[in-house]
Amino acid sequence: MKIRFIEGGVCAVDGVLAAGCREGKYGVGLIVTRKATAAGVLTSNRVRAEPVKLTEKVLEGGRISAIVANSGNANCFTGRDGMDDALRMARVTAESLQVDAGEVAVASTGVIGRRMPIRKIESLIRMAADQLENSPEASGNLASAIMTTDTFPKEVAVEFQLEGGETARIGAVAKGSGMIAPNMATMLSFITTDVDASPSELREALRRAVDDTFNMLIVDGDESTNDMVIMASTCKSGRIDENFTEALGVVCRELARMMARDGEGATKSFQVDVVNARTREDARRAARAIAGSSLVKTAIFGADPNWGRIVAAAGYSGAEFDPDRISVTLESENGSVGIVEEGDVLAFEGKPELELAERIMGDDEIRITVDLNAGSESATAYGCDLTYDYVRINAEYTT
Amino acid sequence: MKIRFIEGGVCAVDGVLAAGCREGKYGVGLIVTRKATAAGVLTSNRVRAEPVKLTEKVLEGGRISAIVANSGNANCFTGRDGMDDALRMARVTAESLQVDAGEVAVASTGVIGRRMPIRKIESLIRMAADQLENSPEASGNLASAIMTTDTFPKEVAVEFQLEGGETARIGAVAKGSGMIAPNMATMLSFITTDVDASPSELREALRRAVDDTFNMLIVDGDESTNDMVIMASTCKSGRIDENFTEALGVVCRELARMMARDGEGATKSFQVDVVNARTREDARRAARAIAGSSLVKTAIFGADPNWGRIVAAAGYSGAEFDPDRISVTLESENGSVGIVEEGDVLAFEGKPELELAERIMGDDEIRITVDLNAGSESATAYGCDLTYDYVRINAEYTT
Repeated sequence: MKIRFIEGGVCAVDGVLAAGCREGKYGVGLIVTRKATAAGVLTSNRVRAEPVKLTEKVLEGGRISAIVANSGNANCFTGRDGMDDALRMARVTAESLQVDAGEVAVASTGVIGRRMPIRKIESLIRMAADQLENSPEASGNLASAIMTTDTFPKEVAVEFQLEGGETARIGAVAKGSGMIAPNMATMLSFITTDVDASPSELREALRRAVDDTFNMLIVDGDESTNDMVIMASTCKSGRIDENFTEALGVVCRELARMMARDGEGATKSFQVDVVNARTREDARRAARAIAGSSLVKTAIFGADPNWGRIVAAAGYSGAEFDPDRISVTLESENGSVGIVEEGDVLAFEGKPELELAERIMGDDEIRITVDLNAGSESATAYGCDLTYDYVRINAEYTT
Repeated sequence: MKIRFIEGGVCAVDGVLAAGCREGKYGVGLIVTRKATAAGVLTSNRVRAEPVKLTEKVLEGGRISAIVANSGNANCFTGRDGMDDALRMARVTAESLQVDAGEVAVASTGVIGRRMPIRKIESLIRMAADQLENSPEASGNLASAIMTTDTFPKEVAVEFQLEGGETARIGAVAKGSGMIAPNMATMLSFITTDVDASPSELREALRRAVDDTFNMLIVDGDESTNDMVIMASTCKSGRIDENFTEALGVVCRELARMMARDGEGATKSFQVDVVNARTREDARRAARAIAGSSLVKTAIFGADPNWGRIVAAAGYSGAEFDPDRISVTLESENGSVGIVEEGDVLAFEGKPELELAERIMGDDEIRITVDLNAGSESATAYGCDLTYDYVRINAEYTT
């Protein structure tokens, strides 16, 4: 199937309106998808922000008319006041758009444990409601409004053909793993589409895509109290099928890569492909262990083709394999080189393999392939380097 | 029971001889405990160094006469040559000491994937064999010889009374989570005692102590291919009992604390006590998640009393609890302060709690107590801050 990348973010889907406004450290983004079929994947953290609790209920209805998202305050650990504020965001959005407040999903990201500056957020919601449009600019404003320490807005949109021949689209925005101290990395993503599906069909497709992409993205391993992915469909194109699932996977993977590139303090991003694992779970474990290893992450920062740390991370991941049969390949736009082959180290001093490996590790985007030679399952994880700036950003005291 | 800290490290136990020599980046330590009853806990990493494989076999006999340990080369990922070198270390040690080579445990730490400089190591073994003594200095030399990027040698010894009234001793040395790139944090610990026990009794006691201490120590979450704890007993005192188990726990806890203090690039160490968890496993999970969180570790570096990161780490740990009932207390020699009480945040701007919390977080040794209010089980984890120096040490290229 051919998947074509197009402009427009969430507004690539016909009939979707978006807007975003920002004032200082607070931003509000709106997406309007009247009576859209919807599904979501919410944080599995036991500590959940109030908007997460509210949106979970809204999604139970399988239908949303709008999404309102703010940056600057996570509305987490704010108790009953926090729930009042989340409900208020939904109500003000509903009034401005003339939709049912019970069909408004609410998302927040920012500082935790502090009451929402609700008046400011309300005025931003009203301001955004006046600027709603179906245009690439509108989606861009939305993507910018929900940024926290992100350094660039994140949008993807694709067009593809369903099995029946109908043209369908998926559009998306996301905010990545920026931190608003004293908070943790929060990821939000909103996805629109026009494929015809029930809420449970959307949920199943979303769950699979999230599992292979966002759930395989590791910036620092801390899971936020506010993470949220919501997908809404106008249902105006053909029936949901495997082509849709594939295209959704591509969209989520692109967003995950952008978030890896924009990880806090990151100077480089990398992808870990674990192949020929005994089970899918083994492949996922090994890929995540390598992408999450502080030692691998600092080696990438230091441009050190450190096969030892890669192999050792696979070793403690819980995946089954024979160390004497493992192979490791590094790849970038500068080329590709095997540094370990069936347990033999190839990249040592004086060998051309080491030189090439060092050149590759100097690049901004690196792909590490680990062949466990233990089966036929594979998985991919996404990560970024661990840098002085990560420490600086996260060690600085917040006020 | 009263446990008295004494001098002497492994040599606090009568009849134990020790020595240590160093030449440049290579060091060799020897412990001689003729026909001692022995047990060990070895790395669970699937990638295991050759000396780990050899020592596993030696320990199956339940008896060791000597331990030989080298720093500077981990003898890992070195294949058949590596096993030859490990066997050679055992043989040279056995010849020098006139003991059975099958009763010599071998440990290595340092760079991985490179052949051992076996001639140099052999000459260091012979040199050390000539300096064997039962003295505090000898144990100190041993502790120094096995250091890699450790900044101080680590020794503990205690004296206590068994239930039957006999005086017993436990002595120990350790090397901590220093890294010799391109390697990972390796921890080695050698423990001597005079309690009368079978190998399986020793193993059971050691397993319990390791589980509560070394296995709860997190520097960067990477598990080494070379980790090894060996305990050897002369069996000259009374029978093993609960007093011994308690004393062994104290010894291992002290070593774990020293290793946390000496974590790579660390400026501070901290302890996380999770109390009133539903299950022991819940308590362990939450304590480890908090101690291992990059966000908590950078907050400690930045002296930021960031309750949000602590609570969120507990939230994603998998432990069951109600966020509205969680309490968090910070403590140091400067005092103690509750920053979250049954879900209410106490340490916010303008409150004296915040000021005191900031002062406490400025100290070198911090204790974080998290009360989950969900049961009666507890666990403790040990950690250190994540600093610029951690990144520098681990990002620098090795040659």
